[in-house]
Amino acid sequence: MTLSAEAAAEIAAQRAAEAPTRRAVVPALEALLYEPMPVLDQGFVRVVDYMGDDAAVVQAARVSYGKGTKQVSNDQGLINYLMRHRHTTPFEMCEIKLHVKLPIFVARQWIRHRTASVNEYSARYSVLDDGSYRPELAQLAAQAVNNRQGRGAELDPAVAERVRERLDEAAASAEATYHWLLGNPESEGGEASESGPGLSRELARMVLPLSSYTQWYWKIDLHNLLHFIALRADSHAQYEIRAYAEVLAQIVEQWVPLTAAAFRDYRTEGAALSGKGLQVVRRMLAGETVTRETSGLAAREWRELSAVLGLPPEG
Amino acid sequence: MTLSAEAAAEIAAQRAAEAPTRRAVVPALEALLYEPMPVLDQGFVRVVDYMGDDAAVVQAARVSYGKGTKQVSNDQGLINYLMRHRHTTPFEMCEIKLHVKLPIFVARQWIRHRTASVNEYSARYSVLDDGSYRPELAQLAAQAVNNRQGRGAELDPAVAERVRERLDEAAASAEATYHWLLGNPESEGGEASESGPGLSRELARMVLPLSSYTQWYWKIDLHNLLHFIALRADSHAQYEIRAYAEVLAQIVEQWVPLTAAAFRDYRTEGAALSGKGLQVVRRMLAGETVTRETSGLAAREWRELSAVLGLPPEG
Amino acid sequence: MTLSAEAAAEIAAQRAAEAPTRRAVVPALEALLYEPMPVLDQGFVRVVDYMGDDAAVVQAARVSYGKGTKQVSNDQGLINYLMRHRHTTPFEMCEIKLHVKLPIFVARQWIRHRTASVNEYSARYSVLDDGSYRPELAQLAAQAVNNRQGRGAELDPAVAERVRERLDEAAASAEATYHWLLGNPESEGGEASESGPGLSRELARMVLPLSSYTQWYWKIDLHNLLHFIALRADSHAQYEIRAYAEVLAQIVEQWVPLTAAAFRDYRTEGAALSGKGLQVVRRMLAGETVTRETSGLAAREWRELSAVLGLPPEG
Amino acid sequence: MTLSAEAAAEIAAQRAAEAPTRRAVVPALEALLYEPMPVLDQGFVRVVDYMGDDAAVVQAARVSYGKGTKQVSNDQGLINYLMRHRHTTPFEMCEIKLHVKLPIFVARQWIRHRTASVNEYSARYSVLDDGSYRPELAQLAAQAVNNRQGRGAELDPAVAERVRERLDEAAASAEATYHWLLGNPESEGGEASESGPGLSRELARMVLPLSSYTQWYWKIDLHNLLHFIALRADSHAQYEIRAYAEVLAQIVEQWVPLTAAAFRDYRTEGAALSGKGLQVVRRMLAGETVTRETSGLAAREWRELSAVLGLPPEG
Repeated sequence: MTLSAEAAAEIAAQRAAEAPTRRAVVPALEALLYEPMPVLDQGFVRVVDYMGDDAAVVQAARVSYGKGTKQVSNDQGLINYLMRHRHTTPFEMCEIKLHVKLPIFVARQWIRHRTASVNEYSARYSVLDDGSYRPELAQLAAQAVNNRQGRGAELDPAVAERVRERLDEAAASAEATYHWLLGNPESEGGEASESGPGLSRELARMVLPLSSYTQWYWKIDLHNLLHFIALRADSHAQYEIRAYAEVLAQIVEQWVPLTAAAFRDYRTEGAALSGKGLQVVRRMLAGETVTRETSGLAAREWRELSAVLGLPPEG
Repeated sequence: MTLSAEAAAEIAAQRAAEAPTRRAVVPALEALLYEPMPVLDQGFVRVVDYMGDDAAVVQAARVSYGKGTKQVSNDQGLINYLMRHRHTTPFEMCEIKLHVKLPIFVARQWIRHRTASVNEYSARYSVLDDGSYRPELAQLAAQAVNNRQGRGAELDPAVAERVRERLDEAAASAEATYHWLLGNPESEGGEASESGPGLSRELARMVLPLSSYTQWYWKIDLHNLLHFIALRADSHAQYEIRAYAEVLAQIVEQWVPLTAAAFRDYRTEGAALSGKGLQVVRRMLAGETVTRETSGLAAREWRELSAVLGLPPEG
Repeated sequence: MTLSAEAAAEIAAQRAAEAPTRRAVVPALEALLYEPMPVLDQGFVRVVDYMGDDAAVVQAARVSYGKGTKQVSNDQGLINYLMRHRHTTPFEMCEIKLHVKLPIFVARQWIRHRTASVNEYSARYSVLDDGSYRPELAQLAAQAVNNRQGRGAELDPAVAERVRERLDEAAASAEATYHWLLGNPESEGGEASESGPGLSRELARMVLPLSSYTQWYWKIDLHNLLHFIALRADSHAQYEIRAYAEVLAQIVEQWVPLTAAAFRDYRTEGAALSGKGLQVVRRMLAGETVTRETSGLAAREWRELSAVLGLPPEG
Repeated sequence: MTLSAEAAAEIAAQRAAEAPTRRAVVPALEALLYEPMPVLDQGFVRVVDYMGDDAAVVQAARVSYGKGTKQVSNDQGLINYLMRHRHTTPFEMCEIKLHVKLPIFVARQWIRHRTASVNEYSARYSVLDDGSYRPELAQLAAQAVNNRQGRGAELDPAVAERVRERLDEAAASAEATYHWLLGNPESEGGEASESGPGLSRELARMVLPLSSYTQWYWKIDLHNLLHFIALRADSHAQYEIRAYAEVLAQIVEQWVPLTAAAFRDYRTEGAALSGKGLQVVRRMLAGETVTRETSGLAAREWRELSAVLGLPPEG
């Protein structure tokens, strides 16, 4: 990830300026403020603003005049209770605003989360010139394997190298076409690459690949952010969006550590059992030997339940 | 509006505590922070937290690394443009959190604005003991007139006085029943008022009148807050919610003065013309004398258009 | 529940009118259409319109040109998969519209579900004259017990009777005040009850109790309806809203039986385990004897886990 | 636009199947049902399902037991009133579901409308093989002119032809790379194009251009659909999304003609005046000659106002 000198200067200026506030302040998040946290080869997440802290969750849940409860241990207990019983509105009371640079195919998954506010860099009015995503070789290899279940062989390094060459060629070719389309038809100079039809930006962009980087400001409340992380930091999510979700999870740890702890225990490290799955567990705990056949579960559900319970799949 | 000593102390403690932040700070809003602004006889609005300022709107619209534009005049110009062309997402980038005490019948109108987060004081688990709304005499008189179009006579002061007596009696009676229902069935003492069936709080509350005060934390972004104000500070809104909306409008003036100015010009002081209404204006400007009959408008539309244009209704 | 003759006639007329459609039709839901299903003493739920069926969920998940899969068993399998992995958007593709009559204190809980459309009968412009909720004696007794944990004694029948008398008196008194406030100040007749100050409807309503019935049209998609039912048909929900949620659950069974079956298995009959709770289960399944002390769980969590697993609480 | 034989057969089967319903039926929309309406070179919009009609808007606004008012003229009057005074919730009571095939860069604008439900064809799990958007020559020429304000010369036909060749080459090249990436590494055959690294679909898609066609099911209520049309059928919208919005507007005309008429009069053919603009109109109507200098308006606002009022820009 590289920033222009101008961008770096603007970030430094904002980090240098401090002012007193009566609002809740989270020093650990202040330390991160405005600084780009790198993701993928050229992407980043920057915390641009935030509102509230763990105590704000408690304060809202109690509709109180003052801050949270008197003791941190009480705050943790109440936050655990809220998380366990899915009282979601107190977690909506904290808000965060991020500046994110991300490939368009990731942006298309991301935007499916509708309860958030977005301002995206406009490729209708501006030239999109942020480069495109280039996966690491290790990632290319792994991705081939992951998605062709059980083949057991990674992509050959030479093949991965060849894949990356093709990706580079494709990106370079698309960018060249884009810039040619935008080019000034009146340019007289000898440079062929400089001249072009002067197509509108909004139309020229259509040749750009889905790997192109875009940028947006994204603002979301803590409840919906946790929901995003739960879905997108999950092992079923595509690697590229997972890379962003993991950075978001780190930000949450710094911002609201009590909420982050409850989220880990009740969501990411927990599990949902179906009614049939629960019956299987109850029977097992009562001493019965339950097999796939006697479980009443479909093969896939049996496999998933065995994994959750740490049992051998052929139980 | 009266606060308990405990609440006043908690507010004072929060106002006294300052810490440095790198985030955008609005001194005029810091000055208001935590302090209850009175509304109606016992209600209030308190700003509990906020995020962003006018520059944040500009910054998001431009998806920039630094703050807004270099000059305030440029910021105002861009904000005017955004407001005029209904680019709403940049205004979603500012957020405010309020603690509001309000009568339940007002709360029921308020909650119809769905794009906001709410945590309300729970009358399932706690005793609702915040009193009830008692309109001023002048208000009672006016309300009778307003809604019986054209009668031209206000409520007689003696009648208004009698109305308020009945309202007071009704409120006192409902509260007495509520507390009797909650009362401990085992209380042995001679006080009839002390003893009661011990009904659950969640059920006992059903005898409370819609004038009862409740409280909530309410968090909303600037775009949706402006929409709330546009609808609820309007002359067609019920007086009681209008009283709250006017306080919200004052808060917006302190918080984001450039946005507030654009909002006034393009929303509250502006007007929407229908296609037919616009044709009437064009014909008038071309020198034609247009009457209700030749306008193509229904009587009510003609009246509304005449009012907007400052013409005599019988034009 | 009683309907006016006019309302009954309008319902009968709508039920009698049939027309051909190319859209998905659910005969079991057509049979219910427009007919009020009674809830509480005077409330009801009426299905007024619907869109989609189980096949529409499948069709949207597959983004296909035709209907769902070829076989019902495949549809059930796909719907189970979607429900298990929380793919929620296909369930948003079905929509239902209901006409509901309900007490205001129930309406206030109900409206907290924001992803729905509501049109409520206006007490600003119309007289609210739908009576108020009167709990059954058995319900009054039970509610007192439920909420005073472990007292082990129900409300004495005579006390319950007395409670209901007080509720009736309170409702009658509030209604009398309401109608007096609305009364015409010019009425000359001897009837004291006829004359009144002529207060506006929007203000007079504030004396009405939270037990007053209101009505609304409520439109929601299937995903959000299931979420409503999961929260409000739960044993922790207040009895009165639970009564409505149970009727909604019956409607879902008629409307989308495959989705309803998946919802039961994966939601209402299933359970969410925390990370710590899951570790306890794994240790138990590995043969270890785990006690509250060695579980790492708080007392309340241990109790909740024991209940879920069907173990004695003192395990 | 071309459909596979299988898709055409499925559509024909659905169109042929009719069943009786007690719900509101709109014959004009039934006639369109399931049939693709072509947009751009290969896109389409298909109405897949709908709920409600004009009478449903009226019925919800009145929270009535029966249908709308007794007479169509009354329905039109009430709908006009609702539209004029921005009572939006009754229009939320109608719902429509569409199957849309559209280029990805259009989809990215479209998805910004958050109050809707979407299920998109998955390029994570399936091969995206729907071709890409190829603008017409006339469109290419016009787009170049539109966006380079005042150049006054269209794209030369020969240049437009050359642009299209480059677009075709770029699309063909990207598609070839995509299919090579997906190709089976084990294929032994001589066909170079058949062999490839077997990259996962979710990653391979990143080379596809933004002009690639995708498909989705999109469900939205009438109020939000009208908002979409107001923004996207506007002359400021990009041509490609405008082409879709115009088809949506035609669908609305068939579906809810009374609402469509009100929408035209109060939205698309109407105009919003700012407070300052309104003062200018009032002064003009009072006989004053107002110039740009004495208007208090910025140059751009003066130009916009003159256009709205049908006055010469140099007024």
